[in-house]
This record gives sequence, C-alpha cells and structure tokens, in this order.
Amino acid sequence: MSNGDIFVGEVIGTAILILFGAGVCAAVTLKYSKARASGWIVIAFGWGFGVLAGAYTAAPLSGGHLNPAVTLGIAVDTGKWDKVWVYLCGEMVGAMLGAVLAYLVYLAQFNANVSSTAKSTETTAGAAGTEEPVVVAADEDGPTPTLGIFSTIPEIRNPVANLITEIIATVALVLPILAFGLTKGLGESGTQVLVVALVVVGIGLSLGGPTGYAINPARDLGPRIVHQFLPIPNKGTSDWGYALVPVVGPLIGGVLAGLIYNAAF
Amino acid sequence: MSNGDIFVGEVIGTAILILFGAGVCAAVTLKYSKARASGWIVIAFGWGFGVLAGAYTAAPLSGGHLNPAVTLGIAVDTGKWDKVWVYLCGEMVGAMLGAVLAYLVYLAQFNANVSSTAKSTETTAGAAGTEEPVVVAADEDGPTPTLGIFSTIPEIRNPVANLITEIIATVALVLPILAFGLTKGLGESGTQVLVVALVVVGIGLSLGGPTGYAINPARDLGPRIVHQFLPIPNKGTSDWGYALVPVVGPLIGGVLAGLIYNAAF
Amino acid sequence: MSNGDIFVGEVIGTAILILFGAGVCAAVTLKYSKARASGWIVIAFGWGFGVLAGAYTAAPLSGGHLNPAVTLGIAVDTGKWDKVWVYLCGEMVGAMLGAVLAYLVYLAQFNANVSSTAKSTETTAGAAGTEEPVVVAADEDGPTPTLGIFSTIPEIRNPVANLITEIIATVALVLPILAFGLTKGLGESGTQVLVVALVVVGIGLSLGGPTGYAINPARDLGPRIVHQFLPIPNKGTSDWGYALVPVVGPLIGGVLAGLIYNAAF
Amino acid sequence: MSNGDIFVGEVIGTAILILFGAGVCAAVTLKYSKARASGWIVIAFGWGFGVLAGAYTAAPLSGGHLNPAVTLGIAVDTGKWDKVWVYLCGEMVGAMLGAVLAYLVYLAQFNANVSSTAKSTETTAGAAGTEEPVVVAADEDGPTPTLGIFSTIPEIRNPVANLITEIIATVALVLPILAFGLTKGLGESGTQVLVVALVVVGIGLSLGGPTGYAINPARDLGPRIVHQFLPIPNKGTSDWGYALVPVVGPLIGGVLAGLIYNAAF
Repeated sequence: MSNGDIFVGEVIGTAILILFGAGVCAAVTLKYSKARASGWIVIAFGWGFGVLAGAYTAAPLSGGHLNPAVTLGIAVDTGKWDKVWVYLCGEMVGAMLGAVLAYLVYLAQFNANVSSTAKSTETTAGAAGTEEPVVVAADEDGPTPTLGIFSTIPEIRNPVANLITEIIATVALVLPILAFGLTKGLGESGTQVLVVALVVVGIGLSLGGPTGYAINPARDLGPRIVHQFLPIPNKGTSDWGYALVPVVGPLIGGVLAGLIYNAAF
Repeated sequence: MSNGDIFVGEVIGTAILILFGAGVCAAVTLKYSKARASGWIVIAFGWGFGVLAGAYTAAPLSGGHLNPAVTLGIAVDTGKWDKVWVYLCGEMVGAMLGAVLAYLVYLAQFNANVSSTAKSTETTAGAAGTEEPVVVAADEDGPTPTLGIFSTIPEIRNPVANLITEIIATVALVLPILAFGLTKGLGESGTQVLVVALVVVGIGLSLGGPTGYAINPARDLGPRIVHQFLPIPNKGTSDWGYALVPVVGPLIGGVLAGLIYNAAF
Repeated sequence: MSNGDIFVGEVIGTAILILFGAGVCAAVTLKYSKARASGWIVIAFGWGFGVLAGAYTAAPLSGGHLNPAVTLGIAVDTGKWDKVWVYLCGEMVGAMLGAVLAYLVYLAQFNANVSSTAKSTETTAGAAGTEEPVVVAADEDGPTPTLGIFSTIPEIRNPVANLITEIIATVALVLPILAFGLTKGLGESGTQVLVVALVVVGIGLSLGGPTGYAINPARDLGPRIVHQFLPIPNKGTSDWGYALVPVVGPLIGGVLAGLIYNAAF
Repeated sequence: MSNGDIFVGEVIGTAILILFGAGVCAAVTLKYSKARASGWIVIAFGWGFGVLAGAYTAAPLSGGHLNPAVTLGIAVDTGKWDKVWVYLCGEMVGAMLGAVLAYLVYLAQFNANVSSTAKSTETTAGAAGTEEPVVVAADEDGPTPTLGIFSTIPEIRNPVANLITEIIATVALVLPILAFGLTKGLGESGTQVLVVALVVVGIGLSLGGPTGYAINPARDLGPRIVHQFLPIPNKGTSDWGYALVPVVGPLIGGVLAGLIYNAAF
C-alpha cells in the first residue's frame, strides 16, 4: 500500500468511526434528540458499528487500523515500523474530521444547548406545526455539558486507576485483533472486521463503565482538540487535565498486546 | 439482469424493508402494541434487520439497492445510468406497498387510535377473557399522531440543519456500500449485506437523533403518500412542508458518496 | 435424509427453539427472574437466537425447518410433499418437548407463582443468606398469568386483524428463507441460518406488536397443549378460543410465500 | 496441539471471557459506573461477546473451549480424554486471572464501595472539576454486595431446581457446539465461534433468569475463589454453600450433551 492510500484510508475510516461514535454520544445526551436517554446498550452498539463501517471502508486502502494502539500493536508484532507515522497522521486527521461531521449532524441540537426557557422563545419558533411537542422536564432546564460527546471523562477521577482500566481494555482489543489473523477461515471469509466490531461492542458493555473506554488515543485526543475550538453554546470545559490518560493508557495497552502476542503465539 | 427482474426485485425488497421499518415504528408508538415504548434500540435494529431481509431477498433479482440514494451512488461510481429509472420505479412502488402492509399488520391498533374512553366502549368489547388487561395511563388518553410511523419528522425544524444531517448520514451509508465491493472476501462469502444491515443499525443509533434518518428518498416519500390516503382515525397531518428535505438530502448524499468514492479509491 | 434423521433433527431443533423462546418469555415475565421486565428487545433476541441454536443444530440431520410454515413454503416451492408429514410430526413433538424443558428451567419460579404474601412464608424460607433480598412491589402482589410464556395472546382480540398480522409476518419470514437459497455465497459460507435468525429478530421487533408473532403453528399449538396439562399454580386459562388463529395464519402465510416465490423468482 | 499451547490458549481465552463477563456484571452493578442499571440485555451481550473475543483468540492455540463442560462434552463425543486435564487447568487459571483483571478495571469503583456519605468525603475529593456531578439516590446509600459480579447467585435458593436449570442450560450450549462441527460451511468460513457466541447471548437472555447461568464450572468457581481473597471493601459473603451447584450442574450438562449427540447424530 502506498503512503497516500494508507493516509486516505485511515482518514476516511477513522472519520466514519468518530462520526458514529461521537454521533451516538450526542444522540443519547443532547436534548431534542430522538434517541435521548436510550441507554448504554445504544452507546456500545453505536461505537461498535462505527468500527464496522469505518474499518470495512478503509480496508482496501489501508487495512483499516483506525487506532494508534492497533497500529502500535501490529508494529510490535511484525517489527515493521516505517509506515507507522503515516497511519498515526491519518488516524488523527480522521478523528478530528469525524468529530466535526458529528457536530454538523447534531448542529441544531448543539445550537439549542441553552436553557429551555431561552430556547423556547428563540429556536423552536420554527417548530410550529410539528406533531411532537417539545417537552422538557423541569429538572433538565440547564444546558448539557458537551465534552462527553467528544472525549472520555472518568466516573471517578483517579489517574492510576483510570490508566489501569484503559491499559487492560486496550489489551482486550488489540490481542484478539492480532490473534484473529491466525484464526482459521476468519480472514479469508471477510468476517474478521465484523468480529472485531462485535468485540468493540463487548468492550464497551463490559469495560466502559469506569472511564468511557477510549482504547484509542486518536479517538480521544482528536475530538478533544475539535471540542476546544467548536463554537458550541455552553460547551463547558475541554478538561485538558485528563487528556493524557486516554492517550498514554491505550498506547501502553497496544504495545503490551504486541508483546503478549509475540510471547504466547 | 432484465428490467422485469430489477423491478420485481426492488418492489419486493423495498416492500420488506418498509414493512419492517414502518412496522417497528408502529410497534413502539401505537397503543395496544406489545412493544410499546421499548426504545430507540428497538427502532434501530428493526430498520436494520429490515434491510437484511429485504436486500438478501432482492439480491438474486436486482442486487438489492432498495434505496434511490444507493442507486445514484452506484450510477455515479460506475457511470451506468440506463437502468436507474427501473430501480427508482421499483423502489417507490415497493415503499408504498410496504407501508400498506405495515398498516395491515397494525390494522386493529390503527383502528383503535381514538381516545381511550371511546375505545374502551367500542373496540375492546371482544377482549373479554384476555389475560392482559388493557391499561392506559391517564396522560396517554388522546389519540397518537401517526405520521412518524410512516415518514420522518425532525426534532428541531430547521431545513438547512436537517438537510446537512440527512446528507452526512447518507454518505455514511453509501460510501461503505461502495467500498465493501472491494473488501477482500466480503462479497464472495455472502456477508456483504449483513454488514450493510448492521451499518444501517449503527446509522440509526448514531445519526438518527435529529431527523429520524430517512437516508432513503423512497423510504420517506412512498409511505408519506400512503399516509395521505389511508383511512386511519385521527391520523394527523402528512406534513408535506417537510417532505422535500428527506428526498433531496439523501439524493445529494448518494451522489456525494459516489464522487468521494471515485476520488479516493 | 432418512425419515428417522428428519424426525430426530426436527425434534431436537424445535425443542431448542421453544426452550429459548418460552424461556425468554418466562425470563421477562415471571417474578424472581433476574431478567424480569427487561423489555421487548430481550424477547426478540431471545427468540431469534433460539432459531440460531436450533436450526444450526438440526441442519445436518433435517435441514432445520423447525416450523410447519417453512416446511409448507418449501413444499409449495419444490413440489416435493412426501416428507412433509415427518417434518410436521417432529416439529410438534419438539415444540412440546421444548415447552416442558422451559418449564423445568423456571420450575422454582413457576412454583412461586402465588401471591407474594403466601410465598414469603413458604418458598423463600430457604433463601436466608442470599445477598439479593427478594423485594416485590405492592402492585405486583397477585400471581402472574402464564399462558403468554407458552403461546401467543393478541393485544386486541380481532380474529380477522390477528389473522392478517400472522399471514403477513409469516410471508416476511418464509419468502426471505426461500430466496436466501439463491443468494450468492450465503449457503456455501454457512451464514444462511445466521441471517434467518436475525430476520426472526427483526420480525419480532417490527411485526410482533399486535399478536406476539406466532409465525409458526408448532411454536404456538405445541406449548399450548403443554400449558393445558402442566401443574403450574395459578396458571390461568389456556385460551383455546384463540388457538386456531396462530395455526391457520402461519400456514396460509407459508403457502402464500411459496406461491409468491414461484411467481417472482 | 502441544500441552503448552493448549494451556496458554485456555488461560488467555478464559481470562478474556471472564474479564468481559465479570466486567459487564461490575458495569451494571457498581456505583460510579457509566453502565449502571443498564439492564439484562447488556449483561447477556457482554458475556456473549466475551466468548467471541476469548474463543477466537484462543482458537489457534487450543481450539478455544474456555469451559470444562465443553471440554467434557467433546471428550465424551470423541472418546479422547488424555488432554482433558490440561484444558481444565488452563480454564481454571484463566478464570481466576480474568476475575483479577476485571477487579483491576473496576478498581476505583470497588474501592468506592462504601456508604455514599463516607465516600463523598474520602474518594471524590479528586473529582472536583468533572463535568458529571456524582449523584447517588438516597436509597442507594449502602455498599453494594459484590459476589454477583464474580459468581452466580440463584434468585430462589432451591438446589434441585437450580441444578435442573444449570443442566438444561448447559446442554443447550454444548449440544449446538458439538453439532456445529457438522454444519455445512460453518467451520470452514470461520463463523462457527460467532454463532456460538450469539447462542451464549441467547442462553443468557432466555435461560439466565433463575440462576444467572453459570453453564461453565470454571466461570463460577475460579472467580469465587478470587472473590474470597480480594481486598474489596464491604464485599459480603462468597457464599460457598451454593458453590457446588454451578460446578456440578454444568459438568452433568456437558456429559449429557455428549451422550445425546452420540445417540442422535
């Protein structure tokens, strides 16, 4: 694969991944979304099927890593490091692009992220004639913090515990990915990415509770940068104090998975 | 493929798609449905598995587009436009047929779409002896608007924002479909449509919040026409003022996906 | 395939299907079940994955019909009727066996189907020391009707409307099954049954609202017979007045699917 | 396969399985988890996709049993017993390792398993500046019992009924696994483990209500041993009085499945 193909593939694939992933967080979080408060099962399947769409799309161009932790794990396994920088660049650019796309999909919702009283006089004026009256419970009157749509926020802020969570969850992603290459028939039948996508659903369901499962440095850092600059009303902090954990943890996890794989298989 | 096969395939496949899709919206929306208020995860999987059933059924006859945006994306990609009109006709007829079938499946529920007081004296007379007593909360006493079962309604009515949402969501559907043809093993192993169906589930979960994700002009326009004419009690408006957005947006998205695909792959 | 293989395969496969299907209805319905009130998504996936387990298990022996409507649809399509009676016998025996197995899995729950006051002095005496105290809301004090675990009950009792629902839902099952045999690669790659199982999930989500989707005469009649005879406390009526609809509707649907298939493909 | 490969494969695979499985129980159960109270559908898919990740990873080394009941069923079927002890050792070590990993992923949550009042002055001091305020309802003030995260607890404690539940549920797992080897195309196309994983989801949804579905002696006993020794605040009893049922039941089920398979296929 040429550097150009790798870069374009990773940009497109990671952009699709983050479009779905940030999109589903917006869907569940924002007021005036049909999927509001639809629960953790929606979050986990939304991210997993984002991997499905992004990785199968990128596969013919770049193989579809979409994740620096995966790129690192494969490099540790194969010993080939010369293309790593191309993958990382594509993944970061794609993640930022995807975050912007998710913002555009939920543009009206983001712009309505004001107190309900203010909104009811400003924004929903054009909603006259809709069948579904906009009803917001009194206790939801304030604007919604928006960083959680773009990047991860731990439930309990404890850098060591948060780092352990991200490392183990990333090993649980990258080690299977490396092993699947050996699994009989999986590669040839084209179902490899489907299995990886469902594993990502599983990681979300099972291991996402404490930190919101970055397990991908680009997935967290790219959208965080975009969040810093987007003109979202009442967007709240971009929380740079936590930004290192979801970058370092997954990178350690990716390398660790490569080492375990080389030792065990 | 002959024009006849294409037309019949698209009619059957799109009818199945809309039967499942309008069906799941009826299931979640209507009173006296066992799936009432079962949430967004049900909506998204119902539509996605409608794609699964419809596209695999139509595949041997027409390839199973079921969507003018897909047909357009493929035409832009391949440069072959002579069969496009056959696909579009089949998709529109199929979408209308599917909406009628979904109406028939929920016939008793649609006919019961009156105030609960009225219904309890008219319709449920024959329900004596059922084990599950029909209980309706006091705040649900009025009839349910029914357009949302057939066609999409935006949460915030803003034509520009709604158009952007539909365009991006449609690119997220059609670009992967075009790329999947290149994905190693996916076509040969017959799992291509399964992956597309799960991507549609993902689009629903992630990008459906603002507009209810038409991403398919036939899916929205066909059932809207049917809704206009069906004798549903208290059916409410067919909302023709919004009808253009879910037609134009997906068409733009399909063409855009074809152009991106030709440039990148 | 020999008659013996067909019979044994259909008995085992249908028993697994009903074990999962009646099981998931018990799981969601009965008091003292960890899955109590977990919603329609659980019902639909439980039945669908029952098809998955049953049909893949039965496949090498009988092809895994598990459903007289499927058997009829295939007979109409192929014109081969001589083995039909063997399939039907196996499906009915298997459905009854599966219902008994589901009863045994939930034996303690069925035996606890008394008023909470009575139970708290009788049954939970041995539960001392469990970590999860048994708490039952006051409004759930009475016993639960149990027929809905075994057989279908319509939400609105209207034989014509219920019949239409079952016919259309069964066509939506059997027509795709017939067409999947033609779908490129699906049969060879062994994913055919997986796709059918997910279509069954979709039918449940989308078309199950009015009648609880029998779409299979054996699935409804077999467990109804078993329900009539099982010694379940407070089991309620077996509702024989409705028993004909979920038998006749799916049979019509199966034949109709065969005729449509022969005409269109 | 060498004894070393089998042992390492089963350790890694079973550890991944339990990491996902105990992880999802922690996710749904513990305070300060983003997935708290997200329901039975999350539990069942979390365990099933743990099977997916663990079994595909272990497959090239050991075939990926991950379960003494599966190992026994295969031994009864094939008559080859000499490697059984290696599988059992790997499964037990892996189950214990996985339980420790799940504990580490939820370390901060386990350490916060104190009364909310105590926690709010001790642990969340570092949470200043987070966007999501930690709110705990008054009725959740006490610590959460933790054994249910590691091992199974029956809803109604009745050894005979609990044993019957585990036996039938295990047959419903192992009999399909044995039969899938015969299913046309499933083994060659690499989708066999995917189907097994979805069957496990189905068993959870359908048959998990009474006992929490051990269906795997290592899955229950290994984490129970770990629970006995882990320094979790307010962890509650390890409930050794029930420990025999989820070991003996699945072993009987595995042998029974092997015998049924040999008789029927």
